[in-house]
Amino acid sequence: MPSYKAPLRDITFVAQELLDLSSHYQQLAGCEAPDAATFAAIVEEGAKFAEQVLAPLNAVGDQHGCQWQDGKVSTPPGFADAFKRFAANGWLGLDKDPAYGGQGLPPSLGFVNHEMVCSANHAWGMYGNLTGGAISTLSEHADAALRQRLLPPMIAGRWSGTMCLTEAHCGSDLGLLRTSARPEADGSYRINGSKIFISAGEHDLTENIVHLVLARIEGAPAGVKGISLFAVPKRQVDEAGNLGQPNGVSCGAIEHKMGIHGNATCVLNFDGATGYLLGEANRGLNAMFTYINESRLAVSQQAQAHAEASFQGALTYARDRLQMRTTPRLRADQPADPIIGHADVRRMLLTQKAYAEGGRMLAYTCAKGVDLLHHGATPGVRQAAARRLALLTPIAKGFLTETGNEAAQLGIQVFGGHGFIREWGMEQIARDVRITAIYEGTNTIQGIDLLTRKVLADGGEALSELLAEIETFIHTTSASADLAQALHDRVIAWREVSEWLRDASATDANLVGASAYDYLMLCGYTLIGYLWLRAACVAEQALAAGSEDIAFYQGKRETARFYLQRLLPRASLHETLIRTGSDNLMRISDSAFAR
Amino acid sequence: MPSYKAPLRDITFVAQELLDLSSHYQQLAGCEAPDAATFAAIVEEGAKFAEQVLAPLNAVGDQHGCQWQDGKVSTPPGFADAFKRFAANGWLGLDKDPAYGGQGLPPSLGFVNHEMVCSANHAWGMYGNLTGGAISTLSEHADAALRQRLLPPMIAGRWSGTMCLTEAHCGSDLGLLRTSARPEADGSYRINGSKIFISAGEHDLTENIVHLVLARIEGAPAGVKGISLFAVPKRQVDEAGNLGQPNGVSCGAIEHKMGIHGNATCVLNFDGATGYLLGEANRGLNAMFTYINESRLAVSQQAQAHAEASFQGALTYARDRLQMRTTPRLRADQPADPIIGHADVRRMLLTQKAYAEGGRMLAYTCAKGVDLLHHGATPGVRQAAARRLALLTPIAKGFLTETGNEAAQLGIQVFGGHGFIREWGMEQIARDVRITAIYEGTNTIQGIDLLTRKVLADGGEALSELLAEIETFIHTTSASADLAQALHDRVIAWREVSEWLRDASATDANLVGASAYDYLMLCGYTLIGYLWLRAACVAEQALAAGSEDIAFYQGKRETARFYLQRLLPRASLHETLIRTGSDNLMRISDSAFAR
Repeated sequence: MPSYKAPLRDITFVAQELLDLSSHYQQLAGCEAPDAATFAAIVEEGAKFAEQVLAPLNAVGDQHGCQWQDGKVSTPPGFADAFKRFAANGWLGLDKDPAYGGQGLPPSLGFVNHEMVCSANHAWGMYGNLTGGAISTLSEHADAALRQRLLPPMIAGRWSGTMCLTEAHCGSDLGLLRTSARPEADGSYRINGSKIFISAGEHDLTENIVHLVLARIEGAPAGVKGISLFAVPKRQVDEAGNLGQPNGVSCGAIEHKMGIHGNATCVLNFDGATGYLLGEANRGLNAMFTYINESRLAVSQQAQAHAEASFQGALTYARDRLQMRTTPRLRADQPADPIIGHADVRRMLLTQKAYAEGGRMLAYTCAKGVDLLHHGATPGVRQAAARRLALLTPIAKGFLTETGNEAAQLGIQVFGGHGFIREWGMEQIARDVRITAIYEGTNTIQGIDLLTRKVLADGGEALSELLAEIETFIHTTSASADLAQALHDRVIAWREVSEWLRDASATDANLVGASAYDYLMLCGYTLIGYLWLRAACVAEQALAAGSEDIAFYQGKRETARFYLQRLLPRASLHETLIRTGSDNLMRISDSAFAR
Repeated sequence: MPSYKAPLRDITFVAQELLDLSSHYQQLAGCEAPDAATFAAIVEEGAKFAEQVLAPLNAVGDQHGCQWQDGKVSTPPGFADAFKRFAANGWLGLDKDPAYGGQGLPPSLGFVNHEMVCSANHAWGMYGNLTGGAISTLSEHADAALRQRLLPPMIAGRWSGTMCLTEAHCGSDLGLLRTSARPEADGSYRINGSKIFISAGEHDLTENIVHLVLARIEGAPAGVKGISLFAVPKRQVDEAGNLGQPNGVSCGAIEHKMGIHGNATCVLNFDGATGYLLGEANRGLNAMFTYINESRLAVSQQAQAHAEASFQGALTYARDRLQMRTTPRLRADQPADPIIGHADVRRMLLTQKAYAEGGRMLAYTCAKGVDLLHHGATPGVRQAAARRLALLTPIAKGFLTETGNEAAQLGIQVFGGHGFIREWGMEQIARDVRITAIYEGTNTIQGIDLLTRKVLADGGEALSELLAEIETFIHTTSASADLAQALHDRVIAWREVSEWLRDASATDANLVGASAYDYLMLCGYTLIGYLWLRAACVAEQALAAGSEDIAFYQGKRETARFYLQRLLPRASLHETLIRTGSDNLMRISDSAFAR
């Protein structure tokens, strides 16, 4: 079992040396501005909690799973206690409004902590993370009275939250949903219907759960334009915020899953439950996108966190395990050398490292964007951040979950046969991370969202801004010319293939779908290439300035080289595949699949 | 849960239309030569058994797993009974020597059946498959008396077999093994030591188990040149073949694994067990390679079988599941269209189909080689087959297991959230197939074996023959010129990069390891591209000849196009990566990994 150690050195590198969060915090409005020391102190506290409290519960959670009996769900031993401690330490309210009990720190601090939570215990982390998304959604869309009733106990961790979208017949296609809402005289609604795949939908961690439920008000238009969003507490809450009777929400079953066994995935039945409309009627999907966007970034971090955990496990094993001789010999005193000396093992470890650290760079870049979205000092800053974040979110969600899965598989592979054995912990990582490529919108959905709404719909403006930023960096960088050139070629290709897609998709309705996956991956590989080139420059500068942390910075430089030479070329493959068009996918008839 | 249907139409296509096994059988010596009708009848019997007996036990095996108590292992309910029926039907002796109770059919028939067994129930299939490998090894290396004692009950399925290589401190590096063998006056040996990861090492399917054990005779040289191979029955066997006392072999534990729960993976302790030397002393690894090579091909088929099963499940789901509208609309009468109409779902399904059917083409090509290896009419034929098979085996093992894993992950993805749920069966496929990239030599080992022993060591002769065959086909084929050209480019690149590797590795000891994975994948993608081009030609000819099976042949043609346009370009990426050399892997120091 790999013992998790929070990667504090790299967190500091990305947060402060690469992205200069301390200066960034000074530019924000309406939140605290922690200096580097405060930032580090908070992160270190989070690291301790992840390492000492959450990581030891990870295998426990996998093996015990959640148990359902007569509508009640019990979580694995230790989960409830850890949640109480987490809440008591204020983590749920880290970036929340002090008016409701939050600490008012910038959201990016929550991102830094979230990675550590997820590396230590993904399934456990979902209870708190989903609560955070519900708090954000209520903060933005609930009226003042409802906020006052619901937010304080949620921020304090006495209540939790969920998002209820999926029904048995509709996942990606929410326009089909059937859960209904009937208006009552008092302004509330009666919710009826059944939802599936509700993570943290029922459990024993908190005394109440506030479900955010998409439903259709009776008589509303069909499709997505007739969907509204409601807050539906598991137990009724009076106007003073006191808990009352059960509210007609019951857990009909929990799923048996490939991974994240410690998180209860529930069938929830709503039988005349009282719900409170959030935002405008029939605009529920828009309101839910507060939650969905936040969750998509959270999922991207879950996957990146698994890449980190898998890398740590594989690296430790590769340093310990002696098999065959390497060039040069590393342990002449032993009958064989540690496998970290073998080139192909290094290929796997470097791929993991490049994804774990590259993903961290992208995650924190997004986190900085979330800070600016909520706390930018001017509307212009907030709008620019929104535009950039809209572009980055599907890339982060899609690319980091694909590469997080790849990293987890490589972690198993480095362990050889031991990777397949439960006690070593590597296979749990691969099972847990698998869901990240599916939930909060499959990666097909991410690719289509990216291409349709984030690139083609705005005339490519957000993309042009990003590409211009990257090209400006390339032209002014001190990085190795060959590496910068490799990236520049890919940036030019990114622009050109985007323009080609814009033109060609005008006459080919299937081209967006046919290109969605490859375009998503092309964007991801190139974007992370940009971040690695920046990291290499920071490292070079530190080495030139005489830093004593030589191994760390050399590692950055070499990992950047590895990334740009051995992973970035995949962007070129994806470009080739996009340009083959949709015909080779669409021509085969259903019957010709021949099974 | 997908219900498995044996792909009889495609089996006939590959076996008869593409590879013309009926004519091939006429050229063999020392085995039966089934005509097409007999072949089909045997395959249909196997299909029924796989569909009706084995497939229903697949989820049962996963959920029950094997249980260890006091050294005894009980297999999941139904496993032992199915094994008895399998044995009674003669499947274990299909291609075995009639002198010992076998049916004397060509080995390739066993390959055809093995795929169906593995699609239906991989874990169960291992008990019989390992027995088959043990029978082959004993047939080749045991003396006549031992063959007479051991083979009849094994072929009859009353006894089973295992291969015992791995020890806790040595997996890939067998030179380190410590299990010892002390000669006795009667010509037998006393075996002492402990082995791990022994598949089917203990169970309740048969009354005896013949373990084939690598051990070091006391005083033998260190390293691989001091290893010998022994047959060590679980229960002693007298000269008349009667069962006697337990033979000092005990099962100390079974592993908890990611998948193949229905197969017992054992720690086996040998405490003065009586063993019988197979072949020459200190030449045990060579003798064991009979078993290892056979097992590597079997593992490649396990993975291909999972690609088939996952494809079947995903295709069924994609035809049923209605989400969003497609272009063109498929079900105007429904609120949404089946997801098989979406381009990205088709990308995933076609990838699975291309791997499942492409893998079948490679597996049967290897099977034909095994027929010729054992039953070629002249020494020249047998030697040529051995040379070709030596080249193809690591490609089949490495490439089909990598792509089998990819196919299984795609199967989950097509199912969306349901792919992550145990009851739907797709996640079991992904867990079961994972081991195939690891056991019988990790894919790192396969890549190094391919490049070092199969390409560089013989001066590239076997490879040159294969490339010449492919080029001859390209020059004479009636296939679409653009597809043939795409393949031709890749064949030229394959030759050139092989020559570059030969030259560059002379001065770079790490280049083989640095290139092993990418070279393996380059070979696999190009080789399967050749097989798909051949399949397209056969399909075109059938269509031109007025076949009524139009959908099937059109499907072949379109899948070939998909493969050559959307999967073959990966070979080009692997070439690019090989040519980056070893420096980007070797330069980073251990400490610079920075965890």
